[in-house]
This record gives sequence, C-alpha cells and structure tokens, in this order.
Amino acid sequence: MTSFTNTRTVRIEWGDCDPAGIIFYPRYFEIFDASTALVFEAALGMTKSRMFKELEFSGFPLVRTDAHFLKPTRFGDDVTVESTITFGRSSFEIEHRLSRDGETCATCCEKRVWTVRNADGGLKSHPVPAEVRAKFG
Amino acid sequence: MTSFTNTRTVRIEWGDCDPAGIIFYPRYFEIFDASTALVFEAALGMTKSRMFKELEFSGFPLVRTDAHFLKPTRFGDDVTVESTITFGRSSFEIEHRLSRDGETCATCCEKRVWTVRNADGGLKSHPVPAEVRAKFG
Amino acid sequence: MTSFTNTRTVRIEWGDCDPAGIIFYPRYFEIFDASTALVFEAALGMTKSRMFKELEFSGFPLVRTDAHFLKPTRFGDDVTVESTITFGRSSFEIEHRLSRDGETCATCCEKRVWTVRNADGGLKSHPVPAEVRAKFG
Amino acid sequence: MTSFTNTRTVRIEWGDCDPAGIIFYPRYFEIFDASTALVFEAALGMTKSRMFKELEFSGFPLVRTDAHFLKPTRFGDDVTVESTITFGRSSFEIEHRLSRDGETCATCCEKRVWTVRNADGGLKSHPVPAEVRAKFG
Repeated sequence: MTSFTNTRTVRIEWGDCDPAGIIFYPRYFEIFDASTALVFEAALGMTKSRMFKELEFSGFPLVRTDAHFLKPTRFGDDVTVESTITFGRSSFEIEHRLSRDGETCATCCEKRVWTVRNADGGLKSHPVPAEVRAKFG
Repeated sequence: MTSFTNTRTVRIEWGDCDPAGIIFYPRYFEIFDASTALVFEAALGMTKSRMFKELEFSGFPLVRTDAHFLKPTRFGDDVTVESTITFGRSSFEIEHRLSRDGETCATCCEKRVWTVRNADGGLKSHPVPAEVRAKFG
Repeated sequence: MTSFTNTRTVRIEWGDCDPAGIIFYPRYFEIFDASTALVFEAALGMTKSRMFKELEFSGFPLVRTDAHFLKPTRFGDDVTVESTITFGRSSFEIEHRLSRDGETCATCCEKRVWTVRNADGGLKSHPVPAEVRAKFG
Repeated sequence: MTSFTNTRTVRIEWGDCDPAGIIFYPRYFEIFDASTALVFEAALGMTKSRMFKELEFSGFPLVRTDAHFLKPTRFGDDVTVESTITFGRSSFEIEHRLSRDGETCATCCEKRVWTVRNADGGLKSHPVPAEVRAKFG
C-alpha cells in the first residue's frame, strides 16, 4: 500500500472560536476537508476544481470520520496539519494530525469514496483511476 | 409595488458566537439567507429546492447587502426575523429586521437578482415570472 | 446507567450544502453540537447560557466524535435528529441519529467532559453535579 | 486622516461554495473579518489574541457593513483581498476589495468601534489608543 503526506499551516481565526475562546470543533472539519483537497493538489498538481473537469471524478464523499481532540487551539494559533493518504480500491483513508509547536492537538481519520456519475446523474463509487494512483508514487 | 412579509424565530447557538460571547456577524448573513428562502416558501408553498425543479429559476444571487448591527445577540437568545420583500422587474429587495423581545438588534437590506440558465449554462438575470409575482398578492 | 433522548427537526439549508448539492459534512457537526445543548435544555429546563450562570459548569468540550455518513441530505430536507445521552462520572456520551422520512442518513457518537474553572481560570474535568444527573431520571 | 493597506491571498474552498458552485456569500464576511484582524497584525506586529492581552482593547465590534458582489468566485480560486483602514476617533472604517486576476469580484465597507471593558464588565467605545494609531503612520 502506498501512502503520501502533505503538510500545511493554518491560522485559527477569531471567527473559528466559540465563547469559551477555543476553536468550535466543526471548524476542524472544514480545515480537514480543505486539507484533503490539498493532498490531491500536491500529488496531482491540479486543484479539486480542475479534477472535476479533467479526471473521471465526481467527488470523494466522506463515509466515516473519527476524530480525537486532545488540546484546545485558540485564535491567533498557527497550527500544522499533516495529512497522510492511503488508498484502497475505490476508497481511501486520510489521517490528519493537527499540531501546535510540535504538540498534537487533534487527530482525525477520514474514509472517503471515489465517485463518478452514473447514467441517471447519480453518484456511484468507482475505482480510483490508475493515472491518479500513479501520481502518489 | 407589492410587498410581503414573513416572520420566523431563530435560536442563536453556542457555535454562532465568538470569544466575546456574542454572535459572530457572518452568522447573521446565514440566518438572513435562509430567511429569504423562507419568504418564497411562505408565498409559493414550495421549498427553494422545489423552485429549481418547478419554476423558471436558477437562483437569486445577491448583488448587494447593507447591514446595521445595533445590539449584540448571545447564545440561547430566541430572536425574531421579519423579512419583507419588494419586487422590481428582474430583481427584488428584502429588508430583514432581527429583534429580541421587540428590540431591534440588526437590520439588513439585500438586493438580489432572479436568474435562469442561458444556452451555455451560465446564469443571466431574467424577469421574475408572473406566476411567482402573483403569489405575493 | 441512565439514558435520556431528545428529538428535534432541522431544516437543511441552501448554505449548508456544497457544489455537489448535498450537505457539507462539517454542518452536521454544527447540528449535532446544538442538538447536544438541547438535550440538556430538555432535561434541565434551561438554555446552555443559563447553565453557565446557574450551575457548577464551564462547558462540556468534546474529546471524541465518530460519525458515519450513510445517505446524503439536501437543502430543503427536514431531518429528524434523535440524541441519546448516557452519563459516566465526569463525562457523557451522546449518540445522534439523523434521519429523513425514517431512513438513517448519519450517525454520530460524541464523548464529552463536564468541566469547571480551576483556581487559575483554566478548565478541569469535574463530576457531573448530582442535581444535573437527577434531572435525567 | 491616515490610511493603511494590507493585502493577502485567500483560497476559496469547496466548503465555502453552495449548490450553484459559487461562494456562499456569508463566507466573504468570514474572509473580511479575518482580513481586518490582519490589518492590525500587519501594523502592530501582534495577533488579535495578543492585542487583548497587551493593549487597552476588548474587541472592535462591527456596526455596519455594506457589500457589493460583482462577479462570483469559485472553489479553487485564489483571490486577493486588499484592506484599507481609515481611522476616526473611537471608530474606523475598512474597505475590502476582493479580486481575482486583477478583476474586482466583491467590495465591502465595514465600520467598527474600538471598545474596552467598563466597570461592570460590559463593552463601551473608547478612543483608539495613540500608541495604536502611531503604528499606522
């Protein structure tokens, strides 16, 4: 099994935080969703937007997410998100580790399915195209 | 000019509020956007989702919004949103008044355009269909 | 172990949905977070806002959330959220089941910790007060 | 009157966009709010978080926002946000111009008030401290 990691920095914003002064946890999933798109952008050299136009691809809906919250983060924090993808046949898993100054604050494991449109316009799962897999080495 | 008003109650949630303990103002625009859809639902008897399927309609994108914030609201507040629509030809304005216990906390004036798809799939403005206008009395 | 269930209806809004036309999954966690607050409101007869003022309570931060997404939901859907709480000593679990017309679309299990302020203003876990537990029967 | 401009680049994300495939406009206000904080960070050399600790400052709540939406933006777009601040005595205005490839997509004028805590813990407006003003040249 191949795996591939992309790392980025994210600023936690005032508007991401709740009256306790710490991040409102649904914002973590917005960060993780964008981080997943960036894993593909890093490997394929194209945005998610271009993936829709140039690949046999109609999205990678989430089927499961399992997250642990270890330390709160606060507005003004610059956190590191390390996202590692591992492919199955028509699905893949992404492990996100969000840390601040080297200390893990949250982890999240996502399982997603590669989809294409079927004849009636609905989505169906589909093997990840070989040309996509190849770019992940 | 015809006008039509719809009123609803909205709970301000913990996750709508920021570290100052008051609503993070972009959340007001989420409330106002949903309130605009409900003005049409009240008059037409169909959700925005059905409007796409059953009417000559591809959305009513916002061209301008002008909002005043008079009093902060807090999580646990049940606020009233009163939304009044006034039609132009291919556009309409919505005035939202958000109040708590009768006291105005925020007001917002939106201008939106009625759109349909043109031949190449893009959006273009289009007169509000007569059958729609008629339902607003 | 006692358990207690609260049920509510939520409208999925246009602004909750993504370019695939289905709910953007971080919005589910906003719905679940508000649903958790409503479990307490249903049992205690007070909003989360009043809980901060009237109870030995400084929030119930999430330590884990594990969610499965079975069927997509779309704007205009009115979904049912059934939330069942089970107490530990200083923590509790909430199982959310989100369904449309009786069909389960998403499930989520949250684990949260009851907290109070310690001397230096930080948060520490604390046994759920007996008066709170008693209200859940 | 002094004015000061800060410019940054923002990626429009999948989760910022609605079923029409374009940005859901409340997301613009999240972008503008963070852009305002960054104007102060650029001039003062400290995050908003540190401003609370190190300055006579308890937030700059919005009193008015007036925005025009000229061209839609889409997920994958990297947009430029140019934010210019002009000070009054206890208030300031920020003009945001959001553009893509040099073309203006949205503009927004915010009016905000500088606040401090009064004796009972509430917020009151207060002249922008001279030491803050001085950093804007």
